[in-house]
Amino acid sequence: MTKATYTEQPVGSHGFVRLVDSMGDDAAICQAARVSYGEGTKSVNEDRGLIRYLMRHYHTTPFEMVEFKFHLKMPIFVARQWIRHRTASINEYSGRYSIMKDEFHFPELRHQSQLNKQGSGEDLDPDVARAWMADLDQHYSGTSDLYNAMIRSGVSKEQSRIVLPLATYTEFYWKIDLHNLLHFLRLRMDSHAQKEIRDFTQPIADVVQELCPWAWEAFEDYRLNAVQLSAMEWERIVAFVHGMAEEYSRSTYDILPADMTGKMTERELREFEEKFK
Amino acid sequence: MTKATYTEQPVGSHGFVRLVDSMGDDAAICQAARVSYGEGTKSVNEDRGLIRYLMRHYHTTPFEMVEFKFHLKMPIFVARQWIRHRTASINEYSGRYSIMKDEFHFPELRHQSQLNKQGSGEDLDPDVARAWMADLDQHYSGTSDLYNAMIRSGVSKEQSRIVLPLATYTEFYWKIDLHNLLHFLRLRMDSHAQKEIRDFTQPIADVVQELCPWAWEAFEDYRLNAVQLSAMEWERIVAFVHGMAEEYSRSTYDILPADMTGKMTERELREFEEKFK
Amino acid sequence: MTKATYTEQPVGSHGFVRLVDSMGDDAAICQAARVSYGEGTKSVNEDRGLIRYLMRHYHTTPFEMVEFKFHLKMPIFVARQWIRHRTASINEYSGRYSIMKDEFHFPELRHQSQLNKQGSGEDLDPDVARAWMADLDQHYSGTSDLYNAMIRSGVSKEQSRIVLPLATYTEFYWKIDLHNLLHFLRLRMDSHAQKEIRDFTQPIADVVQELCPWAWEAFEDYRLNAVQLSAMEWERIVAFVHGMAEEYSRSTYDILPADMTGKMTERELREFEEKFK
Amino acid sequence: MTKATYTEQPVGSHGFVRLVDSMGDDAAICQAARVSYGEGTKSVNEDRGLIRYLMRHYHTTPFEMVEFKFHLKMPIFVARQWIRHRTASINEYSGRYSIMKDEFHFPELRHQSQLNKQGSGEDLDPDVARAWMADLDQHYSGTSDLYNAMIRSGVSKEQSRIVLPLATYTEFYWKIDLHNLLHFLRLRMDSHAQKEIRDFTQPIADVVQELCPWAWEAFEDYRLNAVQLSAMEWERIVAFVHGMAEEYSRSTYDILPADMTGKMTERELREFEEKFK
Repeated sequence: MTKATYTEQPVGSHGFVRLVDSMGDDAAICQAARVSYGEGTKSVNEDRGLIRYLMRHYHTTPFEMVEFKFHLKMPIFVARQWIRHRTASINEYSGRYSIMKDEFHFPELRHQSQLNKQGSGEDLDPDVARAWMADLDQHYSGTSDLYNAMIRSGVSKEQSRIVLPLATYTEFYWKIDLHNLLHFLRLRMDSHAQKEIRDFTQPIADVVQELCPWAWEAFEDYRLNAVQLSAMEWERIVAFVHGMAEEYSRSTYDILPADMTGKMTERELREFEEKFK
Repeated sequence: MTKATYTEQPVGSHGFVRLVDSMGDDAAICQAARVSYGEGTKSVNEDRGLIRYLMRHYHTTPFEMVEFKFHLKMPIFVARQWIRHRTASINEYSGRYSIMKDEFHFPELRHQSQLNKQGSGEDLDPDVARAWMADLDQHYSGTSDLYNAMIRSGVSKEQSRIVLPLATYTEFYWKIDLHNLLHFLRLRMDSHAQKEIRDFTQPIADVVQELCPWAWEAFEDYRLNAVQLSAMEWERIVAFVHGMAEEYSRSTYDILPADMTGKMTERELREFEEKFK
Repeated sequence: MTKATYTEQPVGSHGFVRLVDSMGDDAAICQAARVSYGEGTKSVNEDRGLIRYLMRHYHTTPFEMVEFKFHLKMPIFVARQWIRHRTASINEYSGRYSIMKDEFHFPELRHQSQLNKQGSGEDLDPDVARAWMADLDQHYSGTSDLYNAMIRSGVSKEQSRIVLPLATYTEFYWKIDLHNLLHFLRLRMDSHAQKEIRDFTQPIADVVQELCPWAWEAFEDYRLNAVQLSAMEWERIVAFVHGMAEEYSRSTYDILPADMTGKMTERELREFEEKFK
Repeated sequence: MTKATYTEQPVGSHGFVRLVDSMGDDAAICQAARVSYGEGTKSVNEDRGLIRYLMRHYHTTPFEMVEFKFHLKMPIFVARQWIRHRTASINEYSGRYSIMKDEFHFPELRHQSQLNKQGSGEDLDPDVARAWMADLDQHYSGTSDLYNAMIRSGVSKEQSRIVLPLATYTEFYWKIDLHNLLHFLRLRMDSHAQKEIRDFTQPIADVVQELCPWAWEAFEDYRLNAVQLSAMEWERIVAFVHGMAEEYSRSTYDILPADMTGKMTERELREFEEKFK
C-alpha cells in the first residue's frame, strides 16, 4: 500500500477523507469464504474468480470480513445523509463539549432540476453564483458572530450551536466493513445522490480499489455498472432476442454470445446464456 | 384479512408457519414515504405506483415500517440457516429449560447434485428412499431413547440434548419488518436455497401477499423475478440491439418497446428505454 | 387504550410526539418468553413477575417482540442525536424534495455548566434570555429570507437548505421495538442528556407506560432508577455492612433486609441477600 | 503482542479459539473518543482514566472502533447459542458443500440443577459419567456410519447431515467489535451461561486483555464484577447507611469512604459519595 492511502484527501471548502486503519484485503475475503467451502481453489488466479463468484451470487458475508476506519470532515447537511447508514460505527465531534469552528461550506450552486423533484441540474451562471457566494459569506459570518457572542456571554454550548447553519463542518471517525461500505458506495455514488455527498465517495472508492483491487473490480462489474431489469423488461428482451433469431433464421446462441470477449470467464458466459433459456 | 392468515400452515413432518400479529400494510408504506415527499399523490391508484417506484429505486426504508410476527416450528438444520438472518427478533424454545420432544424430520431424499457442490438434484427412487426412512426411524428412536435415559438418570437437560440430531424440531417466535422479510424471501425462495427451507417460505409469502398485495407484486416484478445483469452482459445486449437495428435498417426504439404491453406503466417504459441509451 | 395515546403531544416551539401504531403489549412479552420456557406460569399475576424477572436478568429478546411507531417533529439539532440510535427505522422529511418550512426552535436558554464541559446549568436571567430571543428571531427570519430568495431564484432545494440553522424543525416516522426504545429512554431521560431531547422522552415514556404498564414498572425499578456499582464500590459496601454488624454485635441479615418492605417480592429479597454473601 | 495470541487455544474434545486478525487497541479507543472531546487529556496515564470514564458512563461508541477476527471450532449446540449474538460477522463451514467430519463432543456430564430449571449442578460420579461416555461413543459412531452410508449411496450432503447430533463440531470465522465482544463476554462468562460455552470465553478474554489491557480492566471493574442494584435495593442500602450513621452518631461520609483505597481515583470516589446523597 502506498503512503498516499493514509493521506488526507481534501474535499470541498474544508472537508477531507483520511483512511486511519484497515483490516484485511482480497485474501481475507477468500480466506473466510474457504471456511465454508473447505479446501480447494487456492492459487492467486483462483482468488479473483472466487471473489467475482461471491459478488455475483450475493454471498455477502465474506466481504464483511474486511474493515475500514476513516476520519472524515464534511458539512452537517452531508453528515446527516451519511449517518443514516446504520451499519457503521461513528464517533463525532461534539458541539455540546467543544466550540464549533468557523468553517462553513461554499457550494458550487446548481439549478433546481425540473425533471427530478429532489435533484439539481445545471450549474448556475458563474456571475450569479458569485453573487450568492457573497451573500453566503455575509450570512455565515453574521451567524458566526451571533454564535460566538452567545458563547462569550455564557450561554451553554449545546444551545448556542443551534443558530449555526447546516453548512457548518463537523468531523467524525467512521468504521465500516467492506460489504456495507460497498452498499453505501452503490447508493451514494449513484447519479441520484446529492453531488456534495458524491464528492466524498471518490476518495473512499480509491482506497477500496487500492486495498482490495479484485473486490473493487467485481463490485464495478456486478453492482456499480450492473443493470437490474424487472421481470417485464427481461421478458421483453428475451422475446426480442428469440424473435430476431426467428425472423432472420439465425440461432439465438449464435447471435448473442458470439462477440462476447474480454473480461467474462467461461463460467460467466455460460451463466449469461442460461439466462436466455 | 381472512381468518386463514392466522391459521397454522403445516410444513414437513411436524413443522408449521403461523402469523401471530402484524403492524401496517401497503397504506403504511405510502404513509411513511409521504413524510419524505410531503403532500401530493394520494389516490389509491397512486399508492400502487408509489410502492412500485419505491421498490424499483431501492427506497427501502418505507418497507421497514411494516412488521410481522410469526410462530414457526421447523427442524434445527433449517433453523440454523434461518437464524443467520440477523435483522429479526427471535425467542426460541430452550432445550436447557425444557425437555425436547420426540419430533424429527423425515425428508424426501434427493441425490447429491453433480453440478452444484452444495445442492441436490433428483428425488431418490421411492423404494430406496423408503428403505432410508426405515433407517432414519430406527436412528431417531434410538437417539430418543438415549436422550430420555440420560434425562431420567438426572443428567442435565442442557447436556443430554447434545445427542439429538439436527433433524429435531424446534420452534420460535420470529419478528421482522417487511423490507428485511422480503430480502430473506429473495434469498430463501431462490432455487439455490435448500428445499427444506424453501418449503417454509411459501406460507410466509402467502401472508405477505394477502396483507400487502402491492408490495408483494412489486417485489415479484423488481426482485424475485427480476434479472441482474453484469456491466459486461448489459453491454452485450445493448450492442446486440443496436447491431440488429443497424443490420436490418430498423430503429432501435421501434424494435424494442413496440410490443411492450401489459403491466408496465408509461414511466416504467420510459425508464426501460433510457437504459438502452 | 385511551384515545389520548394517539393524540399529538406538543413539545417545544413547533414539535410533537404522536403514536401512529403499535404491536403487542405486556402479554406479548410473556407470550414470547413462554416459547422458551414452555408451559407453566400463566396467571395474570404471574405475568408481572415474569416481566420483572426478564428485565432483572437481562433476558432482553422478549421485549423486542413489542413494536412502536411514532410520528415526531423536532429541531434538527435534536434529530441529529436521535438518529444516532441505529436500531430504529426512520423516514424523514426531505429538504431535497420539499421546501423547508419557516419553523425554528426558540430555546429556554441556560448557562454553560462549569462542572460538566458538555452540559448546561441554571436558566439565564429572564430579561437576558428575552434579549437573546429577539436576536434569534431576527437571525431566523433573516435566514429564512435568504433561503426563500435562493429557492425563488431557482437554486436547487438540496443546496439552498444548507443556510438553515440547526434549530430548523424536521419531522419523521420512527419505528422501534420496546427493548431498544427502553435503552434509548434510559440514555436520553438521563440528567446528562441535553434538556431539549429529554423534553421529547416524557410523552414517549407516557405511551409506553400506558401500553405496557408492567414492562414500564420493571424498567423504572431495574434500569431507570437502578444503580450500577463498580466492583470496588460494591466491595466497600459489603465490607461496611459486615463491619457494622461486627462492630455492634448484630447479624448482617438482621440488619439489612429487616425494613425491606413494599414492592420487593420474596424472590427479589432473596436475590438481594445473596449479593451480600 | 506475543506470538501466543495468534496460537490455537484448544477447548473441549476438538474445539479451539484462534485470533486471526485485529484492528486497534486502547489507543484507538482514546483516539476516537478525542474526536468528540477535542484536544486535551493526552498523556498515557490519562488514557487509562479516559477509558475508565467511557466504560463507567456507557459511552460505548469508542469501544466499537476496535475489531477482532477469530477462527473458532465448537460443537453445534454451542454454536447455536453463539450465533444468536447478531452484531458479529460470520462465515461458517457448510455441511451442504462439504462432508462433515467425524468429530463429536464428549462432555463432562453434570446433574440437572434442582434450583435452576435451565442449569446444571454437580459433576456426575466419575464411574457413571464413564459409562455414559461409552454410550455416547457408540451413539456417535453409529450416527457417523449412517451419515457416511447415506453420502456414499449418493444422498445429498445437505440432507444426510440431518442425522448428525448437536454434538458435532463446526467451525467459523467470527468478526466483532470490542464493544459487542465485551457485551457477549458479559453474558457468556456469567455463571448462568452453559459451562460448554463459558469454556470458549476464557481464551477470548485472554486475547482482549492482552491487546486492550485498560479496556479489559475497566470492563472487569464496571461490568463483569460490577453489581446492578434495583431502585428498591439501593434505597435500602442508602437508608441503612444513613440509619447506622444516625444510630451511632457518626458521619455518613466519615463511615463510608474512610477505608476506600486502592484502585479508585479521586473522581471515582467522588462519584461514589454522590450516589449516597
